[in-house]
Amino acid sequence: MIANRATTLARFSLNQMTVDQWSLEEAVEACRRAEVGWIAPWRHKLIDRGARDYSRLLQAAGVRVSSLCRGGFFGAAGADDDNRRAVAEAAELGTDVLVLVCGPAPGRDLREGRKIVAQGVERLLPHAIEHGVRLAIEPLHPMMVAERSVIVTLAQALDLAERFDESVGVIVDAYHVFWDPDVERQIARAGSRILGVHISDWVTPMGDATAARAMIGDGSIDLRRLLELVDRAGYRGPIEAEIISSELRSRPGREVFQRTLERFGELASDHRLPV
Amino acid sequence: MIANRATTLARFSLNQMTVDQWSLEEAVEACRRAEVGWIAPWRHKLIDRGARDYSRLLQAAGVRVSSLCRGGFFGAAGADDDNRRAVAEAAELGTDVLVLVCGPAPGRDLREGRKIVAQGVERLLPHAIEHGVRLAIEPLHPMMVAERSVIVTLAQALDLAERFDESVGVIVDAYHVFWDPDVERQIARAGSRILGVHISDWVTPMGDATAARAMIGDGSIDLRRLLELVDRAGYRGPIEAEIISSELRSRPGREVFQRTLERFGELASDHRLPV
Repeated sequence: MIANRATTLARFSLNQMTVDQWSLEEAVEACRRAEVGWIAPWRHKLIDRGARDYSRLLQAAGVRVSSLCRGGFFGAAGADDDNRRAVAEAAELGTDVLVLVCGPAPGRDLREGRKIVAQGVERLLPHAIEHGVRLAIEPLHPMMVAERSVIVTLAQALDLAERFDESVGVIVDAYHVFWDPDVERQIARAGSRILGVHISDWVTPMGDATAARAMIGDGSIDLRRLLELVDRAGYRGPIEAEIISSELRSRPGREVFQRTLERFGELASDHRLPV
Repeated sequence: MIANRATTLARFSLNQMTVDQWSLEEAVEACRRAEVGWIAPWRHKLIDRGARDYSRLLQAAGVRVSSLCRGGFFGAAGADDDNRRAVAEAAELGTDVLVLVCGPAPGRDLREGRKIVAQGVERLLPHAIEHGVRLAIEPLHPMMVAERSVIVTLAQALDLAERFDESVGVIVDAYHVFWDPDVERQIARAGSRILGVHISDWVTPMGDATAARAMIGDGSIDLRRLLELVDRAGYRGPIEAEIISSELRSRPGREVFQRTLERFGELASDHRLPV
């Protein structure tokens, strides 16, 4: 049941990894048919045709891009060049938000890894500003600190973002931050630096921790409260359903898409999400 | 190679879950033979004979108890009675440290879960003081927030502990806190409220997250640095090797015990651990 269809369609964005079994063409077509206004592609899905081509496809379908995922991985060989390409692709796709995954550390030294990230953001920023793209630091769940992101709390992401002007902000991903006793205060602090909001749900026991997210409403995250917090912080942009799940990946894309849209509708209605 | 045997034997404590395949009798006997001075039993291992009986066994072997694991689970049916029994058992075993696992929340509301924990600690404290037992709040890794502990950072554990006198403190477990960008500051803040230090290591990908710890030195935790931080905070008590691992559990207990002692010795020597 979609209780508040107008709100749902105004705020919902389909993060492409929720329907990883689909090509970008299939995902865009599903959004067009369902009148979903937003999509969030991942860069590895752009390979076949390139960003410029997809931009035409998106415009024809009337679907806008809420963010491009992802740049980052500072310190890896070729990261700077790749990040500049990511900025250019975001601009070509018509979004001003590039999501950054900030890690891992080169060894056991997380402080060193964190320095590398700060320096990487600083180097990338002039290029981003030139292209009208904002850099969105996404703190990942602390269980991903060793292999993926040395930025693991909103406080830490904001400490870094606030070294720069509002061209640098943060992503609030429910799955990554719901556990944090400081989350209320940090979301309020983030304010206009919130460049995106991602939702999914948390279940245990988890299998592969990188693809163990659950359908909205199936787990233990109080998503309603998290949406209230980003509301109060003034965020009115698209909310991406990003449910990276090996289980959902094995199901028909259409089923996953419909279920996601329904659950988002229930949440938006329950919470009276503002447009 | 145990490079600094005296230091190792003075500071090393065998947490019983590292050799879960052994009974407490077997673990105590291994400690006695190796001249290890400390052990940390878990309550479910006391069932056969009871704390008083084990106390005699321990005294005869010359092995002291660094902590008893665990009380907590506030909010569960019968928790208060069980926690009072845990305090009495700790006293009978001759340790003044009872480890508390503080959760989970009754539903999705982590704030409510955290209130329940604070109230539970407050109710238990007079009984603990009467028995000369200190309550050690152990923040668990945020990946355990849904099913095990709503206390997930040292800062949060200290915020709670500091509401009381020094009868309430914290456990610094490397596995649970190493990811935290604030860990240096919080360990310094903890000071004399550090009632225990646990070590193990972190590897990915992990299987069952509740038993996925790795042998000291096999993973990505900078244990040397964490020991430096607790040193600087003034902690000179036993350091428990607590390696909860389904893999180690399947090996012969003697092999795991020897390897743990060796690795601890290497770490202690490398770090020049003070006695």
